[in-house]
Amino acid sequence: MKIAYLGPQASFTQLAASQLFPKAELLPQNNILDCFSAVECGEVDQAVVPLENSIEGTVSMTLDYLYKTPDIRIEAEAVMPIAHHLMVHPDCNIENLEKIYSHPQALAQSFHFLDSGFKEIPKQEYSSTAAAAKHVSENPDRNLAAVANQFAADLYGLKIIRRNIQDIEQNHTRFIIISKRQNLYLNNELEVSGEKSGLLITLPEDHPGGLHQVLSVFAWRKMNLSKIESRTLKTGLGNYFFFINVTGTWKSALHHNALAELAALGADTVFLGNYKEFLLKS
Amino acid sequence: MKIAYLGPQASFTQLAASQLFPKAELLPQNNILDCFSAVECGEVDQAVVPLENSIEGTVSMTLDYLYKTPDIRIEAEAVMPIAHHLMVHPDCNIENLEKIYSHPQALAQSFHFLDSGFKEIPKQEYSSTAAAAKHVSENPDRNLAAVANQFAADLYGLKIIRRNIQDIEQNHTRFIIISKRQNLYLNNELEVSGEKSGLLITLPEDHPGGLHQVLSVFAWRKMNLSKIESRTLKTGLGNYFFFINVTGTWKSALHHNALAELAALGADTVFLGNYKEFLLKS
Repeated sequence: MKIAYLGPQASFTQLAASQLFPKAELLPQNNILDCFSAVECGEVDQAVVPLENSIEGTVSMTLDYLYKTPDIRIEAEAVMPIAHHLMVHPDCNIENLEKIYSHPQALAQSFHFLDSGFKEIPKQEYSSTAAAAKHVSENPDRNLAAVANQFAADLYGLKIIRRNIQDIEQNHTRFIIISKRQNLYLNNELEVSGEKSGLLITLPEDHPGGLHQVLSVFAWRKMNLSKIESRTLKTGLGNYFFFINVTGTWKSALHHNALAELAALGADTVFLGNYKEFLLKS
Repeated sequence: MKIAYLGPQASFTQLAASQLFPKAELLPQNNILDCFSAVECGEVDQAVVPLENSIEGTVSMTLDYLYKTPDIRIEAEAVMPIAHHLMVHPDCNIENLEKIYSHPQALAQSFHFLDSGFKEIPKQEYSSTAAAAKHVSENPDRNLAAVANQFAADLYGLKIIRRNIQDIEQNHTRFIIISKRQNLYLNNELEVSGEKSGLLITLPEDHPGGLHQVLSVFAWRKMNLSKIESRTLKTGLGNYFFFINVTGTWKSALHHNALAELAALGADTVFLGNYKEFLLKS
């Protein structure tokens, strides 16, 4: 089985993909668009992309491509705590650190640690945490450090000198598994932390109370929303679609009638699937 | 007057800041956190940061810092069309292009153009479009190209060989001006494209229909929402706050009573300001 993921190698998305698909062939992609394209044209069976609060991607690109490729569905969601480590080449003289490399968001997320112990050492932004680790491994003669994950340390043979340097304890990234047909992803070795459905809803026109009317479909049925996000349609400013997560199993007549009621209201709805949420290790 | 902006120099945010504050001293910051910190500690009067669909930042970081720094308010919003150009050093031999550098999202947004005319030429990801342009200008002996904006071409003396190579015509980035006190930003030389209010709302507890109840406050008053986004509180999974934009002027008793009703419902509300939306040039 072939699985595309948002690269480069040793990215947080690969860390997620390797836990979700321990036996598959994992193919790194340059960006989120390439992940969707690989699924679309059948080059891979499925793809893993970040949905929320990621260090590499933004939720908005994933939502936009879900909207633009209506035959792609969500098979599962996975949540992973983000842990940043400070790492160096084994030959590095730590007393004389020259520079610290990482992705801008990883540097920002480790700000307090870097500001207290390593204030004087210049920070250099890199396109990803994994690329920063690779750069450090390729320059053993200089005393460089990288802020990256465990996976990158292993892949590039770096030594971790400080673990868990991120500022916020509760820092999670959400990923989704996407595919063209619903495969009902299941992995008995992973902990299931919930179940939900994903929907994309386009309002018939932009009028006051339109969203409220759509949400009433879920409210009176006591269907709980765990996420809602508006995204511009790019047909001009002010035209939006919504991504909504409804918690629980989607199977009763109650739920199916909700879709009929949305249609009756003139809202254009894409049901992205009912799927499990898995808990990954950092 | 000192204005912080999300750098580096020649970023899209500087392009926005230079139009919003043509006479101010503009100070580039490494990341969105640094922009908020500079305002917070009084190092600058105001800051310009991306709010939505930006090439450099993500909406989520800006929303998170708005939530975390409750004394920071929004003074204005500005919308700018994003235009990418392909540029080289004036001495470049275009026939023998070696590599094309840019930010991953800029490469993705120019995918169809690059894929048709420049498919064989390797693409190299860089931490920003501006840094990519700088790299090209510093290596005149190699035949390199960058995908970046007009500002970067001017700053680094590069020659634009193809204009507007972005795939999506309607590609806008939204920026906000933030400050500690509401200064009611006004610039008569810019076109005003709207007026809105920004609110952060935390629900009392996660229960079905909670959001629907909160939105009813706006719906029966015929107050139109142009944006809604849920963000995790990071106190654990499943706890959210909402960022909402209400269109129009916020002044009548109707609007003020809405805040009282939100409080009565037990929702914790931060009113970020009522402000104008300005239209910028690309």
